[in-house]
Order: sequence, then C-alpha cells, then structure tokens
Amino acid sequence: MSNLPHLTSLQNERIKAARALDRRKERKETGLFLAEGAKVIATARDHGWMPEILFADPDKADGGIVGELLTWGRKAGAQCFTVTAKIAEALSARDNPQPVIGVFKQRWTEPPTKLRPSDVWVALEEIRDPGNLGTIVRTIDAAGAQGVILAGTCCDPYAREAVRATMGSIFAVPIAAVSQTSLISFAKSWPGETVGTHLKGSDDYRRAYNGPVLLTMGSEGPGLSDDVAAAMTTRVKIPMAADTGADSLNLAVATGLMLYEIKRPTLPKQDD
Amino acid sequence: MSNLPHLTSLQNERIKAARALDRRKERKETGLFLAEGAKVIATARDHGWMPEILFADPDKADGGIVGELLTWGRKAGAQCFTVTAKIAEALSARDNPQPVIGVFKQRWTEPPTKLRPSDVWVALEEIRDPGNLGTIVRTIDAAGAQGVILAGTCCDPYAREAVRATMGSIFAVPIAAVSQTSLISFAKSWPGETVGTHLKGSDDYRRAYNGPVLLTMGSEGPGLSDDVAAAMTTRVKIPMAADTGADSLNLAVATGLMLYEIKRPTLPKQDD
Repeated sequence: MSNLPHLTSLQNERIKAARALDRRKERKETGLFLAEGAKVIATARDHGWMPEILFADPDKADGGIVGELLTWGRKAGAQCFTVTAKIAEALSARDNPQPVIGVFKQRWTEPPTKLRPSDVWVALEEIRDPGNLGTIVRTIDAAGAQGVILAGTCCDPYAREAVRATMGSIFAVPIAAVSQTSLISFAKSWPGETVGTHLKGSDDYRRAYNGPVLLTMGSEGPGLSDDVAAAMTTRVKIPMAADTGADSLNLAVATGLMLYEIKRPTLPKQDD
Repeated sequence: MSNLPHLTSLQNERIKAARALDRRKERKETGLFLAEGAKVIATARDHGWMPEILFADPDKADGGIVGELLTWGRKAGAQCFTVTAKIAEALSARDNPQPVIGVFKQRWTEPPTKLRPSDVWVALEEIRDPGNLGTIVRTIDAAGAQGVILAGTCCDPYAREAVRATMGSIFAVPIAAVSQTSLISFAKSWPGETVGTHLKGSDDYRRAYNGPVLLTMGSEGPGLSDDVAAAMTTRVKIPMAADTGADSLNLAVATGLMLYEIKRPTLPKQDD
C-alpha cells in the first residue's frame, strides 16, 4: 500500500500519543493499547477487531502480509502511516522492531451469565506479573477455555509486556475485571464446579471436573486469599516431588497444568 | 553480624566487578554470577554451595535470616560486606532490592552417564529466552526431574533474569551444555525413551513413558531441529483446542505439561 503519509519525527503528536501508551495511566484514560507484529495484528483482524492506527515499515508496506493489513486497516477506517526505523524502535521499545505496530481500543467484558457445561473460565486474584498474565491468556486460548476474570488489584492485561506474552491471544480471549467481593458472589452463583488451586488443597489436581468450571488462581507468593479460597466448591493441590526443596511453580505453568487437566478428557487426541 | 566492612561507593572495585556480571562476556570470563534474596541464598546454602561474596543491607545484617547467612558466608570463606541502599539498587538493577545479594561460582555438569529408571532429564535446543529457561529449571526442581542439558546456542542460565526466574532452583538443578551433534549422540545412547515435543508429533502426550526419559524441547517458533527430532525414539504433540486459532504454547508452559505428564504416575497424591 503505497502513498501513505510518512512520519519522520519523534515529536509528531501521534507518535508521542502512541508512545505514551507505555504508561498505565495513559492507557486507562484513552482506553487504547499497542500491539506489534504482522502475525499478531492478523489475529486481531481474524477476531473482528479494528485498529485505530497502523504504523508500518515503508519497505514492507507494499504487498505481503503488511500490505494486506494496511489495506484492511484503511478499509476499517484506521489511520495508516509509514514511519522511520527510529520511530518504529521507539514505539516498540526494542531493537529490530516488528514491521507493523497497531493502536487498538481495549475491550472489557462482563463475567459470563450463560454457560455451557464444557465452558471453563479462569479467575486470577491479585495477579501482579504482566508476563505471567499474558502467558495465561495465551494458554486459555490454546486450551479452548472461554475467558479470564481479573479480581482485585491486578496488573494491566493491555500493558506491552502482557500483550507481547499473549502472542496474539489478547484478541481472542475475553477479559473481565471485578472486585474480590464480586468474584466471591459470582463464584457462589456459578452453576458448575469452582476450583481454587491452593497449597493446602485437600484434593489432588489429577481428577475429573464437573463443568462448567471456574478455575481460580492466586498470585505467586500469597496465593488465593482465604475468603476466595473458602468460596470455592473445590480446593486442589498440584504436587511437588517428594524429595525436592522446591515449594512452588511459576503461576503461568501452574495455570497451564490446571487448564490441561480440566480439558484432559476433551482436547483432541492425536489419533482422532 | 556486625562490624562488616561497609561499602559506600559505586566506584569500589568489588562493586564494579559485581555489576559487570550483567554482561554475558564477563560472566563467561570470570565464571561467576549474581543471586539475590535471603530465601534464594538459603537455598544455595542448603544445596552445599559457597558464596564468593555477600553484600547485605546493614539494617538487616544483625540477626534474622540475613544475619544467619552472613555468619554462614564468613565461615565458608566468603567476603562479606554491608552496602548502601544505592549500591544495593545498582547491584540488583531494581527498586526495593533484596536485603542480601551473593556472588557465586557457576557450576556446569556433564550429561549423565548413570541413570535410574525413574530419572528424567530435559534437553533444550537453542533456547533463547532467559525467563523461560529459569522457569523451566524451577519446574524441573518441583517435578523432581534430574537436570537440564542445553544444546546448541542457548541463552545463559546464569543471566540475572534466568536466575531470578528459577526462584532458587538454579542451586538445585544440574546444568550441562553440549553441541547439537553431541545431544544427538547422547540421545542415541540413552537407555530409556527419548521424547521430542513436536507440532508434527505422531503420539499424543497423554501416555505412559518408559524411563529413564530424556525430554527434548525446541525453542519457540522454530521448535526442534529436524536432526534432533529424528534422533528421538518418540515424538509427541500437546494438543490445542479444536476451535481455536492459537497454534502454540509458551515453552515453559509446554515443558511443565510434559514434565508433569511424565511424572504423573509417581508424583505424590494428596491422599497418600
């Protein structure tokens, strides 16, 4: 896609506004976020998102996947620009930036009210690490779970590090945010099993689960709060080896183990 | 532990040398690395490591766990210092640094030659992300696997980000480094099953494994090289949901799923 306006100055207002999205306050006020990379932005397109702005490498703007995305973006009403390598690096905060960077409007959903027996939602209480949050969103997508509910004071799923860790799944997985009190009420009205992962869990995680399942994970270190843990129908534990001094797993790894255990009976088999 | 020398200048040669360990070249030349935090350094102690140097917060150096670690460090022949908050922040490269930071000698092991049927080693081919590597080392420890073999050009397990992600397990898990050719020879002489995780794997990962198991994972994106994949006795696939566009998992999550699947029959049960 030729003949796009070419931006060359870091002082350009649009570039300054896009770079400001590194700050949580700015993301909150504008409701916008950045996503980088042709594959990631193609995922946005495939899930029915529209960009507000696309910034592209002029050497890749004609033809190829970047050209396709620019054509799509223009049709969708996005402002499209080519930018210098220096601007792309500034927008991406890394060397070797991606050839296309988009500004999108955040989407927030409400916790679900209609649930199918096979549905699985993941509630995260007070999660603080954006890399873990993004990796969990990616795993929810891979495992075919339905969405994520952030409870209490959590990190921002639309922070750059979180978005990057989702590898595009930020555009596929609905995200809700509620208070811890609301999570407890919501869990109490949940029609299936509500499962907390807890060091003091009395059940082994290797078991069958009665769907729909609300899987609830606490942050690393403190784990689930007592109130949230007590509101669950089931508290399970992921074991550690008997002869290790290790006492915990990374939160994204633990959530992956739980999701794949819950989905174990229904995920496709290689020989299906 | 009172009366330790107190360092106040960022220009102090020991501080400059410790800070230089942020560079891979410097870590390679000196064979040293940094580890932070009382719990992490207590893990080093519990696994028979000795620090070369300990830097401590003077307000926490008397009594408590930091005091204990300083007493242990002095007995073990470590140079022990208290440092200003500014130096601690510089050593830790973060605000709110840990109250104790240690310099340790790296340990590298050879790939194992004597194996028990229950042993599991993880080989990682061309892994590039230090956070993933550290998280995998942590998971190996939790699952009771024996060690990790880095094959080809990998990131440094003794980089700060990798060490941090291990949460102390860097001191519990043996690490070897070999060429890809050596990994292939090693796999061919392995007495049990050698298992590669591969998008084109023909077996489902939900199965029993014949130990000892050598689990081999490729880096995100390229995955295992054809040569390494072909050298495995078994190639398995972790499924994605049928109705998702997602096509991959985070490497640390995938490795966690594999390790817990391999260890599934033997990890402690809650009701044991």
